[in-house]
Amino acid sequence: MTQHYTIGIVGTGVIGRSWTVAFARAGHSVRLYDIDPTRAQEALDWARQHLTTAGAVDAVSLHTDLAAALDGVDYVQECGPDGLEIKQTLFRELDAVAPPNAILASSQSDYDTNVIAAGLRGADRCLTAHPVNPPHIVPVVELLPTEAVPAATIERACAVLRSAGQTPVVMRRYVPGLLMNRIQAAMLKEALALVLDDVADVADVDACVSDGLGLRWALLGPLAVADANADGGAREYFTKYRDSWIELMDGLSPTPAFTPEQIERIGRSVEEARGGAPAADVHAWRDRMLTALLELRRADPSPYTSATA
Amino acid sequence: MTQHYTIGIVGTGVIGRSWTVAFARAGHSVRLYDIDPTRAQEALDWARQHLTTAGAVDAVSLHTDLAAALDGVDYVQECGPDGLEIKQTLFRELDAVAPPNAILASSQSDYDTNVIAAGLRGADRCLTAHPVNPPHIVPVVELLPTEAVPAATIERACAVLRSAGQTPVVMRRYVPGLLMNRIQAAMLKEALALVLDDVADVADVDACVSDGLGLRWALLGPLAVADANADGGAREYFTKYRDSWIELMDGLSPTPAFTPEQIERIGRSVEEARGGAPAADVHAWRDRMLTALLELRRADPSPYTSATA
Repeated sequence: MTQHYTIGIVGTGVIGRSWTVAFARAGHSVRLYDIDPTRAQEALDWARQHLTTAGAVDAVSLHTDLAAALDGVDYVQECGPDGLEIKQTLFRELDAVAPPNAILASSQSDYDTNVIAAGLRGADRCLTAHPVNPPHIVPVVELLPTEAVPAATIERACAVLRSAGQTPVVMRRYVPGLLMNRIQAAMLKEALALVLDDVADVADVDACVSDGLGLRWALLGPLAVADANADGGAREYFTKYRDSWIELMDGLSPTPAFTPEQIERIGRSVEEARGGAPAADVHAWRDRMLTALLELRRADPSPYTSATA
Repeated sequence: MTQHYTIGIVGTGVIGRSWTVAFARAGHSVRLYDIDPTRAQEALDWARQHLTTAGAVDAVSLHTDLAAALDGVDYVQECGPDGLEIKQTLFRELDAVAPPNAILASSQSDYDTNVIAAGLRGADRCLTAHPVNPPHIVPVVELLPTEAVPAATIERACAVLRSAGQTPVVMRRYVPGLLMNRIQAAMLKEALALVLDDVADVADVDACVSDGLGLRWALLGPLAVADANADGGAREYFTKYRDSWIELMDGLSPTPAFTPEQIERIGRSVEEARGGAPAADVHAWRDRMLTALLELRRADPSPYTSATA
């Protein structure tokens, strides 16, 4: 039988409401708090539309007092506004009122968790758990525990996330952008440069990914792709193509200046490619395609193990 | 009614046999040539297994003489061995024996087409048409015409490729690695560095892509992802996050040294993640998942236009 958890969601915007669906759908009790009660109510309404069982809907409760919201929780997912001081203040409050054993996780990706939780008595239960938007659909969550968090607590956080269908990935130390924004930045840097240096148009550079490389990356990470590219695996592949990759990597484009003219040029071209479709239509299309794609993968799983077992 | 083309495939290894299926499946006549007749026969056998109609199988013919193979072709897809001199020699031969109006396309991605076709009378019909492996499944093909190729010939090459279900992307000028290997290099460089700098394990870095970012990239290119991330589109997104992206892009990791120890470490970790599955099983899984994924996309197309219209 699956373990039942009581989850606190603090901050109920776009990310908080999505986490609400992920945890409630898994059969957990979810307690919502937002400094703005109207936003908490909107998140509850949105979650109701995205939950398919009455039991899951009933397991979500609204609270107007932070201490009351966190009464009895096992795990808190903080989804408040950006900003280091805001996060530090929030974590001070969470640490003061949450039950002593509750894990305190932030959805942020901008700061070192050690700095957010600096000086807190409960720093040994604080971590970052940064999802890809929207977390109730996309499984991966990157975890950055503070240096004080013991292995057993990291394992407990992973268990809570896995029980909600997420794929936790554990970082050993802080780097700016964590893992995912760095990987995104690397690709975006080269993609923007190829357009701004007049090598190809926006729609063409995007098609290289959406109609080519990205199809494989929805199945295999970059290192598994290399591994699958030679009969002798990644070892043979990187030995054989070592010099080509070094030359290519050394010759990649520098960071664009992001001048207003460059931003205007990129913005106009992507807008043309979008053909006037409203953002809400794009999000709805993306989410239903992601759901279908993940169903395909569940029905026919990858030979590669996925992330920290 | 769709135009019928006669296609020459020169070099019938892994890429050539896959192109054979793509063109024959589309109803075109496909004429195979390889300097090794055994390999050409193996490619034909492989293509037969991958073609579902008798008509398509009958439209593939084997030839042991290059001039005879190219008799009456509209388009040649060269898939010979790597190496600049090999490509130059091959293109000299192709240009000498192919019908005067036939387009000569190379599957290579290592050289500037202008250098491969330098000095040829038919340089104005030579281009690179580099696919993602395997081309009968993955649609994108990046085109690099020589500077002498007129727009009408580029359009003709695109029409041939589109008739076979491919998505041609046209480059305006040569850059090392063309578009796709540069984009791959950018991601691989950062992914390798995150592992080698002990920030996270191979399986965890891969999961950031295969269970996260890559799922979106199978639907939207990096610029369309940015566009979908703000209500006001890419313009608003890049204006708002300009400074964060510049800081992150400037702080990305340098090229790894690819020492034997580093290659061994990466190789061993990916192998562990593969759990002993043979390469053939991984390829079969990848190809059936790609096929299913592309069927999903055809049934429910993206709001974004894909590549050069």
